[in-house]
Amino acid sequence: MGGWLDQVAWSAEGLVSAVVQDAVTRRVLMCAWMNREAISLTVKSGEAHYWSRSRQRLWRKGEESGHVQRVKELRLDCDGDVVLLSVEQRGGIACHTGRESCFFRRYENGRWVVTDPVVKPADEIYPKRR
Amino acid sequence: MGGWLDQVAWSAEGLVSAVVQDAVTRRVLMCAWMNREAISLTVKSGEAHYWSRSRQRLWRKGEESGHVQRVKELRLDCDGDVVLLSVEQRGGIACHTGRESCFFRRYENGRWVVTDPVVKPADEIYPKRR
Repeated sequence: MGGWLDQVAWSAEGLVSAVVQDAVTRRVLMCAWMNREAISLTVKSGEAHYWSRSRQRLWRKGEESGHVQRVKELRLDCDGDVVLLSVEQRGGIACHTGRESCFFRRYENGRWVVTDPVVKPADEIYPKRR
Repeated sequence: MGGWLDQVAWSAEGLVSAVVQDAVTRRVLMCAWMNREAISLTVKSGEAHYWSRSRQRLWRKGEESGHVQRVKELRLDCDGDVVLLSVEQRGGIACHTGRESCFFRRYENGRWVVTDPVVKPADEIYPKRR
């Protein structure tokens, strides 16, 4: 056991980059970081856990927002420094701005244009932060 | 001009992470890095350019392999430190191992299982490297 964790090319900080995709639509929802504990808990629980670099703590996706991610598939890339999660996104919202995806801006003629609506306002998602 | 480049949250090294997805199937093909020049050339030429950290040089995807990526869409995430490219992948091969996607290994019961066939052997893709 643990061999699969050793095949991950952890960064100097002990992290691996995680790309998260909707299992049904295949839309890319977000990117985050994982450490050993986060990926282990993800596999064990079936729910996505990440490492927050800004808060320097483990984070279960949806712990505050309810926007939990059930992991359907976990993949590793050729050089082992990125994992890809296919998830079932509860609430259809992955972004802290209340949008489906964090990639809600598209490049158009020299600017980033917001293309996606807010599904639920952030102050309704995170009432404790008001 | 250039304002859109300033909205990217460049790392200390001047890089931004790039996730690359097939524009039709939406499969995630690879991840790479871009600097200002790489993203500018990508937008200008319509073909994906990256920054190779290992070789410390700009790199036009497919320059050696022919596996060029025509960029159909470019997106930026909420905190500006990841871009998402939707591409038309020439040859149907994004990975240097000759597979469609770099994410050819899936987690199954404590190990990473190779799920994808090699479409074209690497020594045929890169004959000069023999």
